[in-house]
Order: sequence, then C-alpha cells, then structure tokens
Amino acid sequence: MTVASIGARCRLPGWESLKRSAEEAAALIENGMTVGMSGFTRAGEAKAVPLALAERARHDPLSITLMTGASLGNDLDKQLTEAHVLSRRMPFQVDATLRRAINSGEVMFIDQHLSETVELLRNHQLKDMDVAVVEAAAITEEGGIVPTTSVGNSASYAILAKQVIIELNLSAPAELEGLHDIYIPQMRPNRTPIPVVAPDSRIGTPYIPIDPSRIAAIVVTDGRDSPSTVLPPDVDTQRIADHLMAFFAAEVEAGRLSRSLLPLQAGIGTMANAVMTGLANGPFEHLTMYSEVLQDSTFDLFDAGKLDYASGCSITLSEARGEAVWRNLDKYRDRLILRPQELSNHPGIVRRLGVIAVNTALEADIYGNVNSTHVCGTRMMNGIGGSGDFARNAQLAVFITKSLAKGGDVSSLVPFVSHVDHTEHDVDILVTEHGLADLRGLAPRERAPLIIENCADPAYRPALHRYFEAACRRGGHTPHCLEQALGWHQAMERDGHMRTLRDDG
Amino acid sequence: MTVASIGARCRLPGWESLKRSAEEAAALIENGMTVGMSGFTRAGEAKAVPLALAERARHDPLSITLMTGASLGNDLDKQLTEAHVLSRRMPFQVDATLRRAINSGEVMFIDQHLSETVELLRNHQLKDMDVAVVEAAAITEEGGIVPTTSVGNSASYAILAKQVIIELNLSAPAELEGLHDIYIPQMRPNRTPIPVVAPDSRIGTPYIPIDPSRIAAIVVTDGRDSPSTVLPPDVDTQRIADHLMAFFAAEVEAGRLSRSLLPLQAGIGTMANAVMTGLANGPFEHLTMYSEVLQDSTFDLFDAGKLDYASGCSITLSEARGEAVWRNLDKYRDRLILRPQELSNHPGIVRRLGVIAVNTALEADIYGNVNSTHVCGTRMMNGIGGSGDFARNAQLAVFITKSLAKGGDVSSLVPFVSHVDHTEHDVDILVTEHGLADLRGLAPRERAPLIIENCADPAYRPALHRYFEAACRRGGHTPHCLEQALGWHQAMERDGHMRTLRDDG
Repeated sequence: MTVASIGARCRLPGWESLKRSAEEAAALIENGMTVGMSGFTRAGEAKAVPLALAERARHDPLSITLMTGASLGNDLDKQLTEAHVLSRRMPFQVDATLRRAINSGEVMFIDQHLSETVELLRNHQLKDMDVAVVEAAAITEEGGIVPTTSVGNSASYAILAKQVIIELNLSAPAELEGLHDIYIPQMRPNRTPIPVVAPDSRIGTPYIPIDPSRIAAIVVTDGRDSPSTVLPPDVDTQRIADHLMAFFAAEVEAGRLSRSLLPLQAGIGTMANAVMTGLANGPFEHLTMYSEVLQDSTFDLFDAGKLDYASGCSITLSEARGEAVWRNLDKYRDRLILRPQELSNHPGIVRRLGVIAVNTALEADIYGNVNSTHVCGTRMMNGIGGSGDFARNAQLAVFITKSLAKGGDVSSLVPFVSHVDHTEHDVDILVTEHGLADLRGLAPRERAPLIIENCADPAYRPALHRYFEAACRRGGHTPHCLEQALGWHQAMERDGHMRTLRDDG
Repeated sequence: MTVASIGARCRLPGWESLKRSAEEAAALIENGMTVGMSGFTRAGEAKAVPLALAERARHDPLSITLMTGASLGNDLDKQLTEAHVLSRRMPFQVDATLRRAINSGEVMFIDQHLSETVELLRNHQLKDMDVAVVEAAAITEEGGIVPTTSVGNSASYAILAKQVIIELNLSAPAELEGLHDIYIPQMRPNRTPIPVVAPDSRIGTPYIPIDPSRIAAIVVTDGRDSPSTVLPPDVDTQRIADHLMAFFAAEVEAGRLSRSLLPLQAGIGTMANAVMTGLANGPFEHLTMYSEVLQDSTFDLFDAGKLDYASGCSITLSEARGEAVWRNLDKYRDRLILRPQELSNHPGIVRRLGVIAVNTALEADIYGNVNSTHVCGTRMMNGIGGSGDFARNAQLAVFITKSLAKGGDVSSLVPFVSHVDHTEHDVDILVTEHGLADLRGLAPRERAPLIIENCADPAYRPALHRYFEAACRRGGHTPHCLEQALGWHQAMERDGHMRTLRDDG
C-alpha cells in the first residue's frame, strides 16, 4: 500500500481548517466522557489519538468510558490501562494488561453481545456518547467517512456522538473505498425489515454519512494494523477441522445441506481459522461467509476457488497474508463487504440466512452448556463477543475446543461449567480433537454420554462417567451432584490443575 | 359459544368420506412415530385423538415422540404419561405427572426456545413428522385449516407431517375465523424478510394452507379448553407491578420511551399477568402487545381503553373471562391477531419492534443470571418457553420474581444460579416485591450490590453481601467463592430450606 496524496483522500472542501495534531484532538476528550472508537479484532482502530490520550493522562490524569467495536491493536488497551484512562470499557477486549485490571476490579468491563452495543446507545440505554474517534481511509466531498479495515461500531458512534474526530490514515489502501456497506436500522417503533437476504446484499452507502459540522478534528496518520496472532493449524485443531468436515459431508449426504453448505461464520482465533482452512481441501463448492471477522482463512478459501463471497465487519490478517491482500485488494474486492457489526452479527439476519456458526468454547459441560469467557467462573478472558449473536440464531451452532488445556492439567469438558455464556438450547454440535457430539433433538441425559465419549479426553472420561452416573441416581431432568458440580474447578483453584480427576492421575 | 352446523364449519367438498371416530383416527398413529399436536398454553389442543391414543395404549402399548406448541390442557399430558405413550416430548410442558416422568428419566424432554422447534423440523434436524393432529374451528373449501384458540406450531406441523388429522371442534366460536394470520418463512438460503413491522401487520392467510389429499381423518369434537389457572394479583405481585410501572414512568420522563411504551410481551402466569393488569391503571395510552400468550390481562387492558392491539399465538383465559370474551369476540377481533409461534416469538421481529419483555424467573443470582427452569439445578419445572426468544432480543428484558419462595424458606436471589437459562447479557431489569435493579450498562461488580439491596429479601441480604465481599477479596470480573457458590442449593437439598442463610434464621 502506498501513501496517498491527502487531496485524493480528503475531499471535504475546507477540511484543512479542521486539521489537528493527535495531541490537539485528544484535548477534546475530557475527564468523565464517554468515548467511542473504531476498531474490531485489532483492525481499523484509531491509532494516534488514543496514544496521545494515554500520554496526556500520565501527567494530567483523566478517566473515561471507552466503547469500541471489539478489540484494539497496537497495544492501545495496554497503554490506556497503564495510564489509568479506562474507568469503564465495553463491549470486548483481548489485552492482557486490561484483562488484569478488569479482574482486579479496577476497570468496570461490560461484556456484551457485539450486535447490541449501538442498539443500547441509540435508545439512550447507555450514557450518551461525547466523542467518537474513527479511523478513515478517505473523507468524501460531503464529509462521509470511509472506514479502513473494520466497520465495527464506527458508523453509529460517528452518527450518535456529539463530536467526531477522524484519523485519516494515508497508509490504508485507497482501494478500501467501495468495500463497505453502511446501513443503520431505523428508530423503533417504525423500523422496517433490514433488507439483507444474502451475504452479497448491498443495502447502504460505501461511507458513514454524517453532518460535517460535527467533525471536530481531522488527524492525519499512517500507522498500520497489528498483524493477527493466529497460529497455523496443529495436530489437534486439524483433527477438529477433520471431524467437522466429515460431519458437513454427512449432512450433505443426508440432504440437510447442499454442497455449498450455508453462509459460514467463524469466531476469531486459531481454532476457528483452522476449521475454515479445512474447507479449502474439502468437497464443498461455492461457499459464502456471513461472519464478523474475516481472517487469513477467508482468503485461503478465495484462492482455493472455494469461496464465492464473504461479508464481515473487519479484516484481520497475519503479516504475510496482509502484505498479499492489501497489495492486491482489487483481486478480492468484488467478493467482499464490510458492514457495521450490528448488521454482520444481526440476530434476525443470522436467522434468516441460516448461518453455520463455528465458535470456540473455553469449556463445556456434559449437558452442552458452554463457557466462553470466565476462567474458573470468575476471571474474564476476552468477552462473549459475537458468539451469542450467531449461536442463538444459527441453523447449526457449532462449538469447538481442545479437550485439554495446560498440557493435560485441565479438562475442557467438565460436569458443570463454572460460567454459562451459551445454554444447552444454543449448542447443536460440540467438537474436540477426539470427536463430535451431535446434540440436536437430544435430552440432557442423552447428551451427557455422547459428550463424554466423543469429546472428553480419555483420561478424564471415567471421572465424568462416574459423576453422571451418581447424578442420575439422584434424578432430575439435568442430573447433578451439587456438592461435586464445581469440584473440578475447585481442584484447579486449589492445586493449579485437575490431574486428580484423571484416571491415570 | 354455540354448537354450529357442521356444513358451515367444514366446507371441503366430500369431507364426509374423511370423517372418523377419535379411535379410528388414533389408529393412524403407530408405535415409534413422531406426532405433532396443536396446543399452546392449554389453548386449542387437539382433545379427542390424544385421549383415544392414551386409552388404546392401556391395552396396546405404544410410545411416540410428541411435539406440541407448548403446554396442553385437559390433563392430556397426564393421561398420555400415565399410559406410557410418551418416550420423547418437546418443546414445553406444565403437567405435574409428566414433570415427574421427565425428572425420573422416563420421558426424554427436549426443552427448546419456542420459536425454534419448527425451524429444526423444517430443516430435517429433528426426525420427520409422521402425523399432525390439529384442532380446527373450520375447514375451508380448499381444505385450509382454521385453528381455534391457538396457532402454536400447528401450521408447520400440518404442512410438514406426512398425514394430518383434523379435530373439527364445533364448540369453538365461528368468529375465530379471520383472527389468525398464517405465514411460513421461506426455506433457506432464499428466505426474504418477514414483513411484520407492527403488532397489527397481517402478512399471511387466515387459515393453514395444506394439500387436502394429506388430510387422513376429520374427527368432529366439541370439547372446551381448560380455563387458565392464573390467580389475581396478591400483595407481592402488586408491588412488583408497581415497581415496574414506576420504572416505565421514569423511562417516559427521561425520554427513553413514549407514553405508548413499546410492544409488550408478558410470560404466562400469575406474576406477568399482574404486571399487565397494573398497566390498566397506569398513565400509559395506546399500548400494543407483541406476545405469545394473551391472558385475562390483555382483555382487561382492552376494556380499560389502554390497549390498541394485541398479537399472540394463543389465548388462554380464566373461566369467567373466557365466558365474556368468547361470547363477545366481535368486540375484540379487529384488535387481535394469532400467529404461528415462530412468528410471535421471532428473534428478528422482537428485535425489530423493540419489544418490552416481561418474564418470570425461578431464581436469579447476584450478577443477574436467571434460572427459569430447574429447581436446584436438576429438576425441570416447565421449560424455558419463549422467554429466551424475547429476552435476548427485547429493547428491555425484564425478569420478575418474588424474593422468597416456600414461605421464606427459600431465597430466589442466590450467589450463583444452579442453572442458567438467561445470561447476564440478556437481563436488563430485575424486579421483586422489594424493588427494581436497573442493570443496563453495569459490570458484574456493580450489579451485585444493586441486586442484593433492591431485590433480595432483607433477611437474606447480609449473607449475600458477605458472599459478595468475600468473593471480591479473591478477585475476578465476576467474583465467586466456588466452594460456597452452590451452597445455598446444597442447604436446600440437605435441609429442605435455606433458613440457615437467613440473618434471622
């Protein structure tokens, strides 16, 4: 990507009078304000103003409520946390420093379904937004904001905030313009149906339409997104992908899916990326994606000729893949849409399209309840993200996890999850490297033996079976031995491992 | 309601050749079959064929998978359970005998979001349906089925089953014809938006369109629905209603709601009915409902001139109210629609309209997670019903419960719910007779003191505070003391009460 001339990027007449340094723009943010920033899965975040804000806070303390699309790159959450800028943070994060501050109670974190944040804001159910800081690849003649590598919540933040700061990033490829599709649902109670009927439905504008009088500052930048940290498939993630490919093939064989399956969604991360990569070598053709983040695997599938179209709200790529994609965006751009996350994750659209949703579980229990967020029921990892938006409304809600964590010290399959993000109602298929449990139409007592036998690591199966059998002797639709239900997590807290539950332990 | 002449009700030419006794029709149901029956909240169930089936099973054992809309009246689930007809049952029930069989593991119960059952069936994710048994108020010239007091899942069951048995109920008011609006979403991936934009949107046909060649039998009946068992408001439910009315008034004052609020949904039962009744005396005007079951309170609101329109999938009334409504249906019918439960509970429509959803919790924890179904985490009460369809997608998700159960022996507010049906993400407002906790935009550590102080019974507040404080000392985004988390339920299991947790205990 080449650094473009500013004139081609910033076409708003008289924009020069709005040009500010990052420090000047950051000065618009005052103590106690609610600030919305662009950024989703470390893509397309405003980069200069948050850093300037952190810098300023080191000598001039202030704290704000920070709302984003999802996670920020470039260590911004770390910097802002270290400068004690964040008193409240929503709706998602992945930063180790911020995570510690959340778990110590220093930062109030509001973990939300990613489709819902702007709905709450629009209806004034959250405090009104003071300032939005949005990264742009261009500003149109009318002041419309062309986002960069993510849309996230930027459109509604820019529309709803009292003032808007635009970071015009000259290193963003000019070819991004035209990729986005910005549509904002009408206010209730007069909302009409959102007309997305397929991943390639274009229903809005390629820019965020705002009244240019609300643009308070334009900051010219050229920083890059942080590369994705997704790892290549390992033996276990490959096995998970293989089990799922075999399942899809059987569904096609049974006539429940066509060879183009249904629009696919895959959560962020190594495991979901591995599953999507698995499709590149599978028998499926003319695939589509209706997802939130588009990762390396999306472009693997394009290059393999397997994928016809991909809709998301951000693009997050590894260093190498990023080089190739951003330099050759023309090759892909007719097959890509980036939407607001309210649309990419919209429950009604996910239900309409019948998405196949593949998301990662932190742990699952023998009845199919899933914990996506809390280690031992208490310590937040990242947040629920979009997994609930998709899983609840998908035609097939798939959750994947390795059966073991910490080198076998922890079983991801437990008698009773220590925190519930997805209830048994919302989990159709559970997959680990050992196998797949098809839970559709099964009662809890039928689910348990299947999950234990197909998904748990063999070393932990006997203890899970013993628990289930003892629980069944006590009765109940969902049998439990309450005094032992959280025992596996208590062992983990006490001993740092669950090895005492292993049959070979 | 008067018993009508059959000719006016059954207009399908040559229908007489299909006329069967209930016993003859029941003979079409064979061992191992999947059978779908009409009926939702004890309204509009097929009455004669299930009884005949139970009778037959007493000397000629058979077992089936029974799917309905929701609960059946006339003790049908009891009769079928006692005759051991049910091997599998979904998606909801409220019968004490069936509940015992579910909890003992005799009947496999699949507890589902009520909007999802027919979606699973349509996509062949459940076993294909062999026979549908649907109660009708009339059969049209083309064989269209006019339902009675509920639509539930009847439309898709009749459309998808291999054979259809119609119970033509001559005691159903003829004026029911025209009340229903039957619309079936298209098959994926070519589904277009469902065009409901307001509670009064009529988008389908007033009958269930089926190919008459699939009608296997017509059974003429005249049984009545069981009357609703809803109790009038007591002191506590009245207080719950008062807290909620004050909250709505404050929301109007703050400009977040108009005086006509937003379309209302209320769960089945005494508590939700009390809340709706509370609106009759409130300052709100031109209310609408977009709900599943329409109860006595709906007609109270009509009569009070407060309610403009009500959309549901069933009407369940007390004896007295039923007399008055069914005899004067003309007075209400222009303001009523009954839809398939897939539509009345549709996540996308609930989200579009911004429904205010009021549902009952069995228990809630200090962080706002809600258990709607399982006593002490194990024993099924009724099922999740439609509460998840509404709460997840509502503009305001309200859960109500009395703070105490069993005369004070049990606190409905606990440190850690023993089963999760609604996660903290899906609970905006929690109300008990003591007060209301507004959880919007709050982190778990902020929610807990509010829920304890505003919602818990004073006798249990000190123990809840002690738990929360001890948990906070250990840290975490959602602090817990795992070894005590389920202790309140263990006390209940061990002692039959939680009195040892009371400050005055």
